[in-house]
Amino acid sequence: MDVILVINSGSSSIKFQAFSVNGATLDPIAGGKLEELYTAPRLLVKRHDGEVIDDRRWPAGERLGHDDAIAFLFDWLRAHAGASTLVAVGHRVVHGGDRYAEPVRVDTEVLAALEALVPLAPLHQPHNLAAIRSITARNPLVPQIACFDTAFHHTQPAVATRYALPPDITSRGVRRYGFHGLSYEYVASVLPQFSERAARGKTVVLHLGNGASMTALDQGRSVASTMGFTAVEGLVMGTRSGSLDPGVVLWMIEQAQMDAHAIGSVLYKRSGLLGVSGISSDMRTLLASDAPAAAEAVDLFCYRISRELGSLAAALGGLDAIVFTAGIGEYAAPVRERVCRAAAWLGVSLDAGANARHGPRISDAHSAVDVWVIPTNEELMIARHTLERLEA
Amino acid sequence: MDVILVINSGSSSIKFQAFSVNGATLDPIAGGKLEELYTAPRLLVKRHDGEVIDDRRWPAGERLGHDDAIAFLFDWLRAHAGASTLVAVGHRVVHGGDRYAEPVRVDTEVLAALEALVPLAPLHQPHNLAAIRSITARNPLVPQIACFDTAFHHTQPAVATRYALPPDITSRGVRRYGFHGLSYEYVASVLPQFSERAARGKTVVLHLGNGASMTALDQGRSVASTMGFTAVEGLVMGTRSGSLDPGVVLWMIEQAQMDAHAIGSVLYKRSGLLGVSGISSDMRTLLASDAPAAAEAVDLFCYRISRELGSLAAALGGLDAIVFTAGIGEYAAPVRERVCRAAAWLGVSLDAGANARHGPRISDAHSAVDVWVIPTNEELMIARHTLERLEA
Repeated sequence: MDVILVINSGSSSIKFQAFSVNGATLDPIAGGKLEELYTAPRLLVKRHDGEVIDDRRWPAGERLGHDDAIAFLFDWLRAHAGASTLVAVGHRVVHGGDRYAEPVRVDTEVLAALEALVPLAPLHQPHNLAAIRSITARNPLVPQIACFDTAFHHTQPAVATRYALPPDITSRGVRRYGFHGLSYEYVASVLPQFSERAARGKTVVLHLGNGASMTALDQGRSVASTMGFTAVEGLVMGTRSGSLDPGVVLWMIEQAQMDAHAIGSVLYKRSGLLGVSGISSDMRTLLASDAPAAAEAVDLFCYRISRELGSLAAALGGLDAIVFTAGIGEYAAPVRERVCRAAAWLGVSLDAGANARHGPRISDAHSAVDVWVIPTNEELMIARHTLERLEA
Repeated sequence: MDVILVINSGSSSIKFQAFSVNGATLDPIAGGKLEELYTAPRLLVKRHDGEVIDDRRWPAGERLGHDDAIAFLFDWLRAHAGASTLVAVGHRVVHGGDRYAEPVRVDTEVLAALEALVPLAPLHQPHNLAAIRSITARNPLVPQIACFDTAFHHTQPAVATRYALPPDITSRGVRRYGFHGLSYEYVASVLPQFSERAARGKTVVLHLGNGASMTALDQGRSVASTMGFTAVEGLVMGTRSGSLDPGVVLWMIEQAQMDAHAIGSVLYKRSGLLGVSGISSDMRTLLASDAPAAAEAVDLFCYRISRELGSLAAALGGLDAIVFTAGIGEYAAPVRERVCRAAAWLGVSLDAGANARHGPRISDAHSAVDVWVIPTNEELMIARHTLERLEA
């Protein structure tokens, strides 16, 4: 059995998913994560049907570097692989810059080009590349394919990607890239199965997870998105602030005497739902809470989505469909309900029963705009790209 | 004759306008500016009918501080005042913070409270207050009224003013304030003369000058605006960037090694229309230019307005009317035309002839949304507030 392994290597965890290749079909076998690498390592692996295959913790205080983690993971996979053969590894790589509008097979030259993009995504790109390098060192012959979170947004017009900054700044790559591209690409790829109107028309997709963004699709192509130069712009997220007056960052430097590390820590780790509520970054916890601050955080999260929905409808020049996806989008019915009620001015009319059942269609027959709940699958998108590149 | 003097004191210029008080009516007498105070001072004064009364330059290299400028201005006014009496001075003050939801007569305690807001508006507030102090020193008995650019936005709901930041930051006053409030308040005050629908309904006002912002009015009250913590957020402006991913500022610190002064200089002075075009911050110059970069700057300016129009319509839950005001809004017919064409999805239909004549109404009979051009008059708004406070 041929197997494709998908790797998503972050700052403190490595997620993975194995797919069997059956002609043009990819079937999930098993997947899991090695998390808290540098503090309290834990491995959790589940079979495709959800059954836990392995769940182990390292002794307290032990640290597992990215290299060690990849080594452990490959040994584990070999021990569990039976008669299967690893034919390729697909990687989620956050940044493909201006250059990569589609996935690419990694070689020395590509790796150097991706390395050069580290200043654009210093928090994520190095960890993505570390996994590629570790695998090359252990298994130099296995093809590795880099799939980019930015690539899907290459279809955006220049006006949607540009900041009003002078050329000495913009020439260094400071522009809006948009992220979550593999999720949007997956949703766009399955849209025709749900609705020709959504697939061919003007559709806004809401990827609402711990990271959250929205993208406007015109005939399935990205024309605008809420995330920009980094994954902190746009919506309120679990611990990220979303959009801020740049003057706030200047205030942090000049008035609050904060350095770049302290500012980054506030914007990425202490803001968003967690910062506003003071309770949790998890939408489930906030929705279950009676605390006024929890309600304020949910209010702000939904309000900012509503504003961006208007802004993205403007980018499209109209609206045919809305799609909710990712953790909050797929499971938080109260959030979807608020967003849809606030979108009544756009002609959205909610089917409350369908919303409680999580769709797939949650707009009613009178709605001028179709509203869908469609689960995303970034790992499968990466596996598909990887298989295509192998065959290319 | 009783006279009210309106002062707008900036970093390098002092603008002024004198009004005669005739019962409840205020009539402009004359106005002008003392500009380039620290580099090449120049005084220009025009009578209300536009005739130049005085136009003089200081010798090259001479510097005129704010104190000197106020002294000169008061001497000049006394020499030209005839039998009139200065009954009050109204000041434009950029920041009233959380405290001042309306104009206030300045005394020692108020001045201290306004001084405490300097960290929120370090580029403007000190110059506003310097003029108040200079006048107090020369003429301690004349009542001075502070009119705030933030006050009109106090009606916004909390969700529209909040950033998703933790309480240790927000408790220090880091929130969205909105600016150009005196302009929006003036427009709201005259809206009933143009249209009951615009006055009572959901209206977005576009204040497009060298500084540019948009505000959503519901029944004449501000519910949301594009400027936030500072006057740099939101639209593309003459030399200001408008909204940016806060990650761009982090990049400037970490990757471009820029300090706060250099960052402020880029965001406030080298960006916007000037930064993108490389030609000019002046919309007239760009509209007259054949250079591709000029067209790109105008495209971006209009695109961002279109996006914000969708976002503000979402804040209102619909749209009855659009109002253009300030320099570009009142005179740049091509900009209004593009914005209206891009707003066709909202039901906007332009009357091209009326637009070429600068209105006042520029939507045609089929338009679902009424579009108006209404000149703003911040000085008159300040004079009115000043007169009201005298009588209170």
